[in-house]
Amino acid sequence: MKFVIDTLGGDKGALEIIEGIKLFHQEFPDVELIAVGKIDELEAIKEIANIIEAKEVMPMDAGVMEAMRMKDSSMSVAIDTLIKEKADGIISSGSTGAFLSLATLKIKKIPGVIRPALITSFPTIIDGKNVVLLDVGASVENTKEELVQFAKMGALYDRAVFGIKEPKIYLASNGSEEHKGSSVGKEAYQILKEDKNFVGNMEARDVLKGHADVVVFDGYSGNIFLKGSEGMAKMMSQLMKDAFKKNIITKVGYLFAKSGINELKNKMDYKKVGGALLIGVNAVVIKAHGNSDGPAFYSAMKVGYNLMRKQVVEEIKKGFSLNE
Amino acid sequence: MKFVIDTLGGDKGALEIIEGIKLFHQEFPDVELIAVGKIDELEAIKEIANIIEAKEVMPMDAGVMEAMRMKDSSMSVAIDTLIKEKADGIISSGSTGAFLSLATLKIKKIPGVIRPALITSFPTIIDGKNVVLLDVGASVENTKEELVQFAKMGALYDRAVFGIKEPKIYLASNGSEEHKGSSVGKEAYQILKEDKNFVGNMEARDVLKGHADVVVFDGYSGNIFLKGSEGMAKMMSQLMKDAFKKNIITKVGYLFAKSGINELKNKMDYKKVGGALLIGVNAVVIKAHGNSDGPAFYSAMKVGYNLMRKQVVEEIKKGFSLNE
Repeated sequence: MKFVIDTLGGDKGALEIIEGIKLFHQEFPDVELIAVGKIDELEAIKEIANIIEAKEVMPMDAGVMEAMRMKDSSMSVAIDTLIKEKADGIISSGSTGAFLSLATLKIKKIPGVIRPALITSFPTIIDGKNVVLLDVGASVENTKEELVQFAKMGALYDRAVFGIKEPKIYLASNGSEEHKGSSVGKEAYQILKEDKNFVGNMEARDVLKGHADVVVFDGYSGNIFLKGSEGMAKMMSQLMKDAFKKNIITKVGYLFAKSGINELKNKMDYKKVGGALLIGVNAVVIKAHGNSDGPAFYSAMKVGYNLMRKQVVEEIKKGFSLNE
Repeated sequence: MKFVIDTLGGDKGALEIIEGIKLFHQEFPDVELIAVGKIDELEAIKEIANIIEAKEVMPMDAGVMEAMRMKDSSMSVAIDTLIKEKADGIISSGSTGAFLSLATLKIKKIPGVIRPALITSFPTIIDGKNVVLLDVGASVENTKEELVQFAKMGALYDRAVFGIKEPKIYLASNGSEEHKGSSVGKEAYQILKEDKNFVGNMEARDVLKGHADVVVFDGYSGNIFLKGSEGMAKMMSQLMKDAFKKNIITKVGYLFAKSGINELKNKMDYKKVGGALLIGVNAVVIKAHGNSDGPAFYSAMKVGYNLMRKQVVEEIKKGFSLNE
């Protein structure tokens, strides 16, 4: 298994990424790592990874044209390396827009896929049960055909990753009734209802209740949902901290409640989710959070490792070669 | 001050609504209440409210045509009563779609307003600081002109309700850069940037951080944001409860931490927010949560009372008569 890592472009600098690589290597010493970035920074991991030099950093706000032009950026070099070395996966915490565009253009879409999507899984209120969400931000506006394909890719992902044979698929909407939804959502509904795994529309407040296996969003509202939920989770965590810090009595309360609270923290820590997959291209392309620290980047690498091991790309290829 | 209440159509039945009315009357005995619904149910409050009979319930999934046809529904009768009695406000926990359409058609838009919006305020991580959000679901798709007006109405609301003279206005987007956003969002940005109170785009994860006074959404993504955030808050609260219930030690922890936790609960209880205002029509039109119980309905009535007292409708009228 070959895994290419872009070590530049994250908000916290390459040292955190390198820290993540070290953590990953400790746990998975058999994975062949190829790290792209500044030679002096990569010195520290030359024993555990192949090192490839790239001096330029893709700017966070790079558009597609700028991304294409910056051929010496670590991001471009990493993608070229993936192709040349026939690696299985790649990860970057750099500019989302640039990374997703370059990956789509260069690594290419799986035959039959109209548009790749960012897919991630999220914990739900039911213990051990995740919900798969896509598109959480690869596109802004989508056609009905794209939404229908997102449902299909979500189901294939859910089968490959979580072993759920007949995933319950929902379309995110502003109401649960059939007549609710954006104009493109309503059109997609009419096609999706022929699919035996499609259940119907789902309001955003029900997504984390654990009834749905896959929830399909257009890229814009999926991004709003994902980031809005993250923001709320962060606020609640902060308020919880404040609640325990209120006075000496509540501090004592924390000491007693600690074991339960730590479980909650573990479940809700987005750093444990770490990265989203660009589904629909010919490799495991992982977008890690821009502000990933070492442990977060390590978690995102683990997400990528798991998806390579579960052969998600092959499963999508198979699924799309059968019916289209 | 006259306040009309539709007592039918909520998920939990009229008795909860009546309970809410009683709580409200205890606190605000001077407000003239007009309750519309079934006579036998309203018997219990005939000493504190004027009673108007209506036997039919507007169905939760009523479309505009059905809503218009059901002239004997408590919702229609309540709206007609508001107009006839020149009441200041109206509240319903019935079908959102039907209520907002009927209210817009019958109570009429304020001159200059293209499209009314659902507006609400949300607690943020900064203590005592709220953020005003609109549209959270009155429309599905919006034009750039509508988004620009939402910004204006949000600012007028923020001034009237929270006394913030120069509210910081943001446009919700999938990125903070100027080039991010839906196609209509990008067009609205170009107009909004002429407004001295407009700061720029805001990602959904930053909305609750307390930097923004007003965040403008199109109705569809605003609905996804609001309900998604509610869903996450609910899940976190549930997980917190579970964390304390884990074992005898964590239960003891809860007893000690209780005072802090209750503060958190109070802040995050959406029932304390209770209702959203349909801004842009000629009355205070409050949509209460469909599943409101007595205390939640009481809170929603308080939201309405506060908006009448702060003369939000008059302020919007003034704002729109000056510049348009």
